[in-house]
Amino acid sequence: MLANRHSFTVQFGDCDPSGIVYNPRYFQWFDISVHALLARGGLSLRQMIEEFGIDGIPLVQNRAKFFAPSRWGDEIALETAVAKLHRCAFDLHHRLFNADKLAVEAFETRVWTALDPQERRIRAQPLPPAIIACFSGEAPPG
Amino acid sequence: MLANRHSFTVQFGDCDPSGIVYNPRYFQWFDISVHALLARGGLSLRQMIEEFGIDGIPLVQNRAKFFAPSRWGDEIALETAVAKLHRCAFDLHHRLFNADKLAVEAFETRVWTALDPQERRIRAQPLPPAIIACFSGEAPPG
Amino acid sequence: MLANRHSFTVQFGDCDPSGIVYNPRYFQWFDISVHALLARGGLSLRQMIEEFGIDGIPLVQNRAKFFAPSRWGDEIALETAVAKLHRCAFDLHHRLFNADKLAVEAFETRVWTALDPQERRIRAQPLPPAIIACFSGEAPPG
Amino acid sequence: MLANRHSFTVQFGDCDPSGIVYNPRYFQWFDISVHALLARGGLSLRQMIEEFGIDGIPLVQNRAKFFAPSRWGDEIALETAVAKLHRCAFDLHHRLFNADKLAVEAFETRVWTALDPQERRIRAQPLPPAIIACFSGEAPPG
Repeated sequence: MLANRHSFTVQFGDCDPSGIVYNPRYFQWFDISVHALLARGGLSLRQMIEEFGIDGIPLVQNRAKFFAPSRWGDEIALETAVAKLHRCAFDLHHRLFNADKLAVEAFETRVWTALDPQERRIRAQPLPPAIIACFSGEAPPG
Repeated sequence: MLANRHSFTVQFGDCDPSGIVYNPRYFQWFDISVHALLARGGLSLRQMIEEFGIDGIPLVQNRAKFFAPSRWGDEIALETAVAKLHRCAFDLHHRLFNADKLAVEAFETRVWTALDPQERRIRAQPLPPAIIACFSGEAPPG
Repeated sequence: MLANRHSFTVQFGDCDPSGIVYNPRYFQWFDISVHALLARGGLSLRQMIEEFGIDGIPLVQNRAKFFAPSRWGDEIALETAVAKLHRCAFDLHHRLFNADKLAVEAFETRVWTALDPQERRIRAQPLPPAIIACFSGEAPPG
Repeated sequence: MLANRHSFTVQFGDCDPSGIVYNPRYFQWFDISVHALLARGGLSLRQMIEEFGIDGIPLVQNRAKFFAPSRWGDEIALETAVAKLHRCAFDLHHRLFNADKLAVEAFETRVWTALDPQERRIRAQPLPPAIIACFSGEAPPG
């Protein structure tokens, strides 16, 4: 399955008055990591919207477990991988490591959506073969 | 159980290039709503830290379902309630309504923690009776 | 001149590890206050884009003075007013009060811009009479 | 004078519904760049607080000019340098380049402050010789 890992440092402004990472910031990091995962597969959301005529890949559910706090200056490695492919959706798995220890683990489900011109609403669509190949790691990064 | 509801408008800066609320922002709203819930019960995190000698009420797990996007200018009502009391932790339930329709639903578990002076690490502690009374809605708001 | 005042409480997540408002947050509050000022004049950026065919009102310069920090739980009043009208731009004046004391003062200049179809680039455009009337306080709020 | 340059990519979540960088985000980038500048000089705010007994280096004024918007996916280089040393304060100069073109320029003044134990308030203090040497570029990075 397509996977990516990137590293960064916890910034002063990422932390709250308790001196630890302000919780919502983790979800911003996960979002950044989704875009980095797409880039690893030679994709970008902008290009996917144009090429496949989709409306986006909205997040429909997620869950996270927080095992340890992270602090200003800590070195983080965030691994994001495609975990499962559904007909019209896919699951991603995030693992955030602080000094090589798993600090946060999260899963999210995103749906492949397109605008239904007749019904004028967003509808889930089957994942295209090219996306299935890319996400399953069978296609060389674009 | 202790519950609170507050309303606000989605701001321009809450939204991403898709024109909808940037997903991590929901978790910031949930955090704001936790503090508003505590205030409804006559509590504040700052006072709880001082009065009960705790280190905080860290989030240890959460999960959310996103049923519909919200857009710049939408009127939001966010309801947050204590859902369940555990010995050393409590569950909260968030329901975010957009124009009276449930748009996002989330659950989170937070732990009552104190610094263990001997072991020099954070440890879960039993919820104090005053907090149980307040969270269960038996005590009048302070 | 068109003016508006709104009040809010400093949130836990607005603050950094020093326990005071994280500086960039002030500029987010100023942006929210610009939208509130427009609403006071019966306008919205979305409607202005549609009605006047503009591309936006981009910020081209700003400056701020910070007289005192604000802390988690502080009650803030933020006053924003049109300060000066130029041919193709306007100046806004922000005054942020904490417990009735001026804590931050800022000025910003925004330009009325439209897409030049021939040159395919953004160009400053003269403020329309309806906007001049609204910003100068001569027109009743819409 | 001490100077630093770092590069990064504009993220999806940095941008607003107009598709350009949400203005307050620039000030967050400047703050991150101040910490990177300190690191370049072998310093960190945390260590400065401990070593010099200061309360912090609060921002007391800033000003910025925005010459061109930046968009999702743009490659940014942000240069930050000490611009001037005052007795109890210092000026920093930020230049943000997008594809080698100057897109944003900003100046800020920060004050060296300590808690006055007698008066129980924050007071500006003279910059210590070690900081003057580091900021003026005369000392080797620590």
